[in-house]
Amino acid sequence: MNKVGIVATGITPFTMDDKKIESVLLESTKELLKNNPSIPKNEIDSVIVSTNNNSKYLSPILSEMIGIKPKIAHSIENLCNSGTNSIVSGYSYIASGLADLVLISGAERYDSPGQILDWDNSRGAFKHPIFWASIFTSAYKREFSIKDEDLAIISVKNHKHAQKNPNALSKKTYSINDVINSKAITGDLKLLDCSRSCTGSASILLASEKIAKEISDNPVWITGIGQKTISAGFTKNDSLSSMESTKISSKNALKMAQKEIEQIDVAEIHDAFSVCEPMALESIGFTNSGNGLKFAKELHESDNFKINPRGGLIGSGHPLGATGIAQTIEIVQQLQSKAHNRQVENAKTGLVHNMSAAATSSTVLVLET
Amino acid sequence: MNKVGIVATGITPFTMDDKKIESVLLESTKELLKNNPSIPKNEIDSVIVSTNNNSKYLSPILSEMIGIKPKIAHSIENLCNSGTNSIVSGYSYIASGLADLVLISGAERYDSPGQILDWDNSRGAFKHPIFWASIFTSAYKREFSIKDEDLAIISVKNHKHAQKNPNALSKKTYSINDVINSKAITGDLKLLDCSRSCTGSASILLASEKIAKEISDNPVWITGIGQKTISAGFTKNDSLSSMESTKISSKNALKMAQKEIEQIDVAEIHDAFSVCEPMALESIGFTNSGNGLKFAKELHESDNFKINPRGGLIGSGHPLGATGIAQTIEIVQQLQSKAHNRQVENAKTGLVHNMSAAATSSTVLVLET
Repeated sequence: MNKVGIVATGITPFTMDDKKIESVLLESTKELLKNNPSIPKNEIDSVIVSTNNNSKYLSPILSEMIGIKPKIAHSIENLCNSGTNSIVSGYSYIASGLADLVLISGAERYDSPGQILDWDNSRGAFKHPIFWASIFTSAYKREFSIKDEDLAIISVKNHKHAQKNPNALSKKTYSINDVINSKAITGDLKLLDCSRSCTGSASILLASEKIAKEISDNPVWITGIGQKTISAGFTKNDSLSSMESTKISSKNALKMAQKEIEQIDVAEIHDAFSVCEPMALESIGFTNSGNGLKFAKELHESDNFKINPRGGLIGSGHPLGATGIAQTIEIVQQLQSKAHNRQVENAKTGLVHNMSAAATSSTVLVLET
Repeated sequence: MNKVGIVATGITPFTMDDKKIESVLLESTKELLKNNPSIPKNEIDSVIVSTNNNSKYLSPILSEMIGIKPKIAHSIENLCNSGTNSIVSGYSYIASGLADLVLISGAERYDSPGQILDWDNSRGAFKHPIFWASIFTSAYKREFSIKDEDLAIISVKNHKHAQKNPNALSKKTYSINDVINSKAITGDLKLLDCSRSCTGSASILLASEKIAKEISDNPVWITGIGQKTISAGFTKNDSLSSMESTKISSKNALKMAQKEIEQIDVAEIHDAFSVCEPMALESIGFTNSGNGLKFAKELHESDNFKINPRGGLIGSGHPLGATGIAQTIEIVQQLQSKAHNRQVENAKTGLVHNMSAAATSSTVLVLET
């Protein structure tokens, strides 16, 4: 199989701006090209757009806007993990030999239609993600005797990390008391436990091994891929306090990369809501079942940025189609020692965890220098 | 590279029915499974949904509806060639080794939002496809001194073919006079020159070489793939009487398959409007520039079904996201000698041409037994 490397990235600040999706999409692509003036733009032979926006033909539109004529061009949607699905698709175009240089651009507006899964009648009128997050939180707290102040550590940590990420939506830090006293969204969910849907864009360029080595001094290689879809409807979840799709994805990604979880130096975890971070840490295997908050608290207290260094979704904001790409960019920057004051020391191997709709589907990527 | 075969197909009648997209999508998938009871359903490891519909998470939804838990699951959109883009994506998942058995299901409703490309301001208020089709028709007629009655042969032929396709939307044949006397849609376009957006669904199953040989007696192999995007905006087209993206796609698909155009026994051509068929026949290389209508007329008069045996888009109807998959199914049936009374004799090698938005992008596939 052809080896696939990440050779360029572009990301712009996440905001609540009311901009056309085409403009949002263009921003991070322009940033990528500006950051990498030696990229042979005309050799980009594939353009994949990751979004939940209803606008059509966005890949040819983006291609025309940046002045290229690719072979492969289309959009990909799968709610919140559209971004990593697009990266895996780009990987497969290169690994199969159909493409050599694939641009993947994700973009979303704050009012994304991907926030609601209308089809899921099992949720009755409760179709907004706050409802499954509320049930997850309630179940996790009950099963592991967790108090609100224990859970609040995730929001405190990730807002703190976000202050070192110039593109993050969050511009403030919060205390444990701030989190538990923030507005009650449901009986089990506080406002500061929620990531915010926002306007944002993130782009990466994938290349075949030969081209990656020609155009980049330090490509980051995609060495592990794991994906799993359990269902679409929330009520089909086997457990309300763990993530089956994440367990399977993580196991398969680590196996493909021939890595043990102990070898992961830095990770992006899909903390759409506070409870998702400990659940994912446990399902990925970073720690034992029920121990996720203790694990996160120890990192927080030692100022260790290993988990969600850019501030996760809670600190960075959550532009759905861009999120998985933004997570991947953070790991690329960490592995290239370009993460400035949020750099995790000696990070050689990283992991990205991106999921959709109450973890009914997950993607896990392993990246290495 | 791993070889990729088509091992099962499912297609249901194209209609003007007002059904939920999830129901439409399920219809052809159920048909595929019903037609192929020996398919190991639980081994389907990828599900790609091709559509322009605004509903989200359709691949996990379809997976849940048929009771499977795939690894890879997402939707693909690229207007009218979403279907062949999905097939190429499925091909790459298998050829790269990430998947072994990929279900590709396309579906659309008659009121598809993919009919209008809002972004293209170069068209002013004239954003419906009838306007670019009208300009193409006018340019083609002027350049090659074509009369309305010459062009009408395409609609006559394709409606005739559709009467032998039980899934076609058209239930009637028309004469040259019927076509030229049908309602004028624009100065250059008659009602019967237009394919109709409709409700429809089409599904195929792709397999790696090893699995294809295990589960199918006569898989059809995808041996050539060519794709090209020239622009998104209509006014960026180099020519108004040929299709640059189709020329490049066809050349590359034939090169990959190591075939000459003379070796193509049967072809599906994207006749969104009458004029598209001669333009595509010329751009693909079946005949010389300006000779497309003469070529089609000779086939029609000798009752040769080589081009658009199922009736093309004009006869079959055009459910956008399903169209490229329906075209591919027709070629599969032809190569497997299962096309009943529309069978082209001794068809061993076939071609699929699928395009979007005034041929600003095209896909060409070569299929072989």
